[in-house]
Amino acid sequence: MEATIPTDLDTVVAAAAGAAAELARATDEQRAHWLEAVAEALDAAADELVPIAVAESHLPQGRLAGEVGRTTGQLRMFAAVVRDGAYLEAVIDHAQPDATPPQPDLRRVLIPVGPVAVYAASNFPFAFSVAGGDTAAALAVGCPVVVKAHPGHPELSRRTAEIIITALAAAGAPAGAFGLVEGFEAGTDLVTHPAIRAAAFTGSLHGGRALFDLAAARPAPIPFYAELGSINPVVVTRAAVEESGDALAKGLVGSFTLGAGQFCTKPGVVLVPADAGFEDAVASAASDAAPATLLNDRIGEGFADGLDALVGHPDVEVIAGTPGGGSVEAPEPVVLATSAAAVADDPDALLAECFGPVTLLIRYADEADRQAVLDVLEGSLTATVHAAEGEDVRALTTGLAERAGRVLFGGWPTGVAVTWSQQHGGPWPATTSIHTSVGATAVRRFQRPVVFQDAPEAVLPAALQEANPLGIPRRVDGRLEV
Amino acid sequence: MEATIPTDLDTVVAAAAGAAAELARATDEQRAHWLEAVAEALDAAADELVPIAVAESHLPQGRLAGEVGRTTGQLRMFAAVVRDGAYLEAVIDHAQPDATPPQPDLRRVLIPVGPVAVYAASNFPFAFSVAGGDTAAALAVGCPVVVKAHPGHPELSRRTAEIIITALAAAGAPAGAFGLVEGFEAGTDLVTHPAIRAAAFTGSLHGGRALFDLAAARPAPIPFYAELGSINPVVVTRAAVEESGDALAKGLVGSFTLGAGQFCTKPGVVLVPADAGFEDAVASAASDAAPATLLNDRIGEGFADGLDALVGHPDVEVIAGTPGGGSVEAPEPVVLATSAAAVADDPDALLAECFGPVTLLIRYADEADRQAVLDVLEGSLTATVHAAEGEDVRALTTGLAERAGRVLFGGWPTGVAVTWSQQHGGPWPATTSIHTSVGATAVRRFQRPVVFQDAPEAVLPAALQEANPLGIPRRVDGRLEV
Repeated sequence: MEATIPTDLDTVVAAAAGAAAELARATDEQRAHWLEAVAEALDAAADELVPIAVAESHLPQGRLAGEVGRTTGQLRMFAAVVRDGAYLEAVIDHAQPDATPPQPDLRRVLIPVGPVAVYAASNFPFAFSVAGGDTAAALAVGCPVVVKAHPGHPELSRRTAEIIITALAAAGAPAGAFGLVEGFEAGTDLVTHPAIRAAAFTGSLHGGRALFDLAAARPAPIPFYAELGSINPVVVTRAAVEESGDALAKGLVGSFTLGAGQFCTKPGVVLVPADAGFEDAVASAASDAAPATLLNDRIGEGFADGLDALVGHPDVEVIAGTPGGGSVEAPEPVVLATSAAAVADDPDALLAECFGPVTLLIRYADEADRQAVLDVLEGSLTATVHAAEGEDVRALTTGLAERAGRVLFGGWPTGVAVTWSQQHGGPWPATTSIHTSVGATAVRRFQRPVVFQDAPEAVLPAALQEANPLGIPRRVDGRLEV
Repeated sequence: MEATIPTDLDTVVAAAAGAAAELARATDEQRAHWLEAVAEALDAAADELVPIAVAESHLPQGRLAGEVGRTTGQLRMFAAVVRDGAYLEAVIDHAQPDATPPQPDLRRVLIPVGPVAVYAASNFPFAFSVAGGDTAAALAVGCPVVVKAHPGHPELSRRTAEIIITALAAAGAPAGAFGLVEGFEAGTDLVTHPAIRAAAFTGSLHGGRALFDLAAARPAPIPFYAELGSINPVVVTRAAVEESGDALAKGLVGSFTLGAGQFCTKPGVVLVPADAGFEDAVASAASDAAPATLLNDRIGEGFADGLDALVGHPDVEVIAGTPGGGSVEAPEPVVLATSAAAVADDPDALLAECFGPVTLLIRYADEADRQAVLDVLEGSLTATVHAAEGEDVRALTTGLAERAGRVLFGGWPTGVAVTWSQQHGGPWPATTSIHTSVGATAVRRFQRPVVFQDAPEAVLPAALQEANPLGIPRRVDGRLEV
């Protein structure tokens, strides 16, 4: 690859900047076609890519094969979003010469922000990595992309980049539309490069915050869309335990051990009714949970440290599993428990995210107790309610919606469907922004509004021409037209 | 006022935080009604408020009376935006149990971010101040507002706040929905207060950057929507001068002297064809321009310093007016000129914003010369093209759209219509963000997406209930329904 594809940061970013105008000029149909070409090429290469991913990430073959499908499905969804055209948010207000003051003709549309930096994650080597959602969303709306590869899967990153670049070129996209850089220094250089206009990141709070600070401190600051830490609280009501405690316990264990607990949506804390027998059910369900190999040694060590801190807390008990059991690379899943009072008293220690196969049950006696925990919860990507059929959870829902971007009922947060409505983002420290990194509206992070005033028809983008040649939804003189 | 309305920052912010839940729960109709009640109260008090504004800002009575109308019209526009309901961006994806993997029911809506800090501007004592667009947009979507008053018009700020608070209370809004704080320290304390979830600012690059940095450095960073500096380039083609040079010259002088040059959209630099006679026309038109009193001494001194720096530049000539003429408080309007080559050579000095009645003509010989200036332009709120009928300005338009949020044809940028499509914001340093501070979509800055997964109908907000009881536009299973 080194022979044919540039890897030097300045060269890669310059190529991206050079491609920006042509990408912005491309039609929706062209960009949709490019995304589909990339999807097709990745699907065709799945048999080659998945074994590399297995070797580098230690994730199971089946999961990774599924993730390729999720990734190419995501590329195709963004193609559909672009073809739909509503993402342009076209708005036309015709002139009102007789108004006081007279009002000009104004036509607003969203345009690409320019070259976007994407920081790949370790835990989804396909779906949140080189060809992941951030890349797809940025390319979809006409922004060149420079991906900073995650060091956890370097070969997979290079090979994926090669496939993307080849597919884009064959589909007619301009050279420089996509590039890859590697290494820690490239990561900091990228976010401070003057040609980069926005950045998207999925990873740790520590690393994300450092890059966020660099983005904000630039002479010309750029938006830094970071998905960071999330403990994803789950609330199980007493009635829910009575109705289906065993099934819930099994569901919980399945969710917190999925991907060896390495999901940003892993249920990290579970508010459970005290003395309702739910802990025993969880312990029993967890007895079947086998160790699974973590992504890499750094994550293994981080998990061991985080678990040590929790287990060493005077108010924490071990309910299932042996902390330190298994190995650092493939630790035993562990269930811990504490009380609502202890959490209210020491939230920083007890509500710290611990990335890996552990969850913390928080016992509450009554609603006041439960509320005391909710009051100290920071922002999360998700919050989950398990209640009995017909139970009134309106107040609980409102409280959880204040703290999370997705509120689930009767399910588990570890699955994130890629749809028009999906929201993957929440109050700090879940994300840095009011945007999503999954779902159709993820494109909005890479668009900037421009309004044309009294423009001759000849200079207007197609989206704003009077006859609506693209046939897209628009708001005209205050009225939505579909 | 001190007797009845709290002025202590912690008290005001605590009241705002206390009101947040009730504001978020309020119906669209209630919030629209509150905005209209504020508009009505301000209109009724115009005869009392305008004289205070005249005394404190030195702006003319007629302009300020018009600005009250603009401000109350803006409040009513946001009421209409809220009633329309599209601002909620409701999206519903029904469950697809047979999909692989099965897809849950997902329903997304935008909710208020929580208490918002608004930093008032000096140059629009009504429209960008206590009851201005930021306040209206935040209240519209259910966010409590704490305004940091501008020290340039303290009495007007207090009296306006009193009217807002009284009107909101009478209309049934919760206490704490609106508050006012004053003083430099309150400004920095406000943006770092943990209960504040977003901030909006209109003012200088220096002050805005300092507050932006504080917002970004918080333990939990918040979005800081700042409208900062803008030189608003104007390009006049040779053919346009031939077609209507005298009228353009008069229009330019009217625009750069409007409000004594104290508009963030003032045309600060004008690219003009060399040796086309346009300079003489501008000099002639400017000979009628009278000194007007600036807002306050600080602005007078800033203008004098900025003008000194420009006039002292070896490549700058004075075309009209006497720099230092008039007084510091009411300086003579000045037109300067330089060459494209000089600007390309020293853009930092020659393209610095100078707030007040001055504009800089930049002579270009040909398109390459013109492009050399465009290449060094930073972001602006606006960019303007004056071309002859039928002249091809497509490439020029694309270049300007890369550098501005509003591109105008045949007009002057100093008027900013409040409409559905308006965009008031552009690349740094025009604004810090990809959002607008004027127009219907200004509300988006104060909203955050939440998605409900498999939620029982009883907990869903009305916007997401199956039967669409609000009758709002929604995207359902990928299809826009109006």
